[in-house]
Amino acid sequence: MAAPLGESALDQLFRDARTCQWFDGREVTDEQIEAIWDLLRMAPTSMNQLPLRVVWCKSPEAKERLAAHAMEGNKDKVRQAPVCAILAYDTQFHEFMPQLFPVSDAKPLFDGPGKAAFRQTSAFRNATLQGGYFIMAARALGLDCGPMSGFDNAGVDGEFFADAPSWKSNFICSVGYGDRSRVHERLPRPAFPQFNRLI
Amino acid sequence: MAAPLGESALDQLFRDARTCQWFDGREVTDEQIEAIWDLLRMAPTSMNQLPLRVVWCKSPEAKERLAAHAMEGNKDKVRQAPVCAILAYDTQFHEFMPQLFPVSDAKPLFDGPGKAAFRQTSAFRNATLQGGYFIMAARALGLDCGPMSGFDNAGVDGEFFADAPSWKSNFICSVGYGDRSRVHERLPRPAFPQFNRLI
Repeated sequence: MAAPLGESALDQLFRDARTCQWFDGREVTDEQIEAIWDLLRMAPTSMNQLPLRVVWCKSPEAKERLAAHAMEGNKDKVRQAPVCAILAYDTQFHEFMPQLFPVSDAKPLFDGPGKAAFRQTSAFRNATLQGGYFIMAARALGLDCGPMSGFDNAGVDGEFFADAPSWKSNFICSVGYGDRSRVHERLPRPAFPQFNRLI
Repeated sequence: MAAPLGESALDQLFRDARTCQWFDGREVTDEQIEAIWDLLRMAPTSMNQLPLRVVWCKSPEAKERLAAHAMEGNKDKVRQAPVCAILAYDTQFHEFMPQLFPVSDAKPLFDGPGKAAFRQTSAFRNATLQGGYFIMAARALGLDCGPMSGFDNAGVDGEFFADAPSWKSNFICSVGYGDRSRVHERLPRPAFPQFNRLI
């Protein structure tokens, strides 16, 4: 590492980027979807747990199934997004640790019913970190995101994860080219001293 | 949004970036620390909750206090980092919603003892998302990160948050210019089909 990215890159990632819930009609290609994954998977998780699981709802049928479990105000947002991703975490992520963390035998650290709470916390923490990487990766690829928490998690889990009961939905996120005319005014962002201490 | 960032920016953020626990001795300035915050605060959280709280341990004394609660293998990593940040979440984040979300009266959604579990989940989710933004912001500014979960959360909370009992430590993260000669070999990253479904 060395130099900061240029100002326009920092603008695109952070300063000018905005949450978009409405889009301009352009498609998001399957190649773009895979490109988001190919970037975000490189960013760090604890012991390379990589507990994020993603269901990309792109067909009208898939979006309709998801909209059925969204809060009233979010249903149309889901329906009209080019793609709406369900970001989930796998509470049995440790089953993959022999593949993902071959340098030591890490699976026993997380194995068994006595470790269920530890696994839940670790999966939720690390998959949510990956959720942050997801949004930054999409923005780095020139796309806008519309993350949403307003949906029935248990309903989504039942609808989409019947064959994968260890997957738990975390949040959902639309991806596309945002309609900037429908973006809200930027909400306040506090200066450093309010939420930081430097000691 | 429009064009993807250039290849070198994608490399710096994701593909060539590596977790670094050892650094080359260069300082991280107070201005760089504030610049990380100034970027990461712009990225989205649910209803602009912004529940992340950061304690930046930069003085030898602060790093020593933190090292005392780190796992044995992490103590020296904390001590020799230019700065090691404690990323925490505020379970009373809703007290700031009149400031941060002035468009409606959102505080009652999270208020009262009956909402404690909901607040905990929301604070943990959104502050961890901000943890992902933290790492990407540092990388965008040319810095390397060394996130760590291996420490005694209750011990850190008692040591640093005695005056802020609603703050709960999430993970810690060193920041500096990494010593690339001490970075581990890259761990495996699965291809799209293993952890994604496109429907």
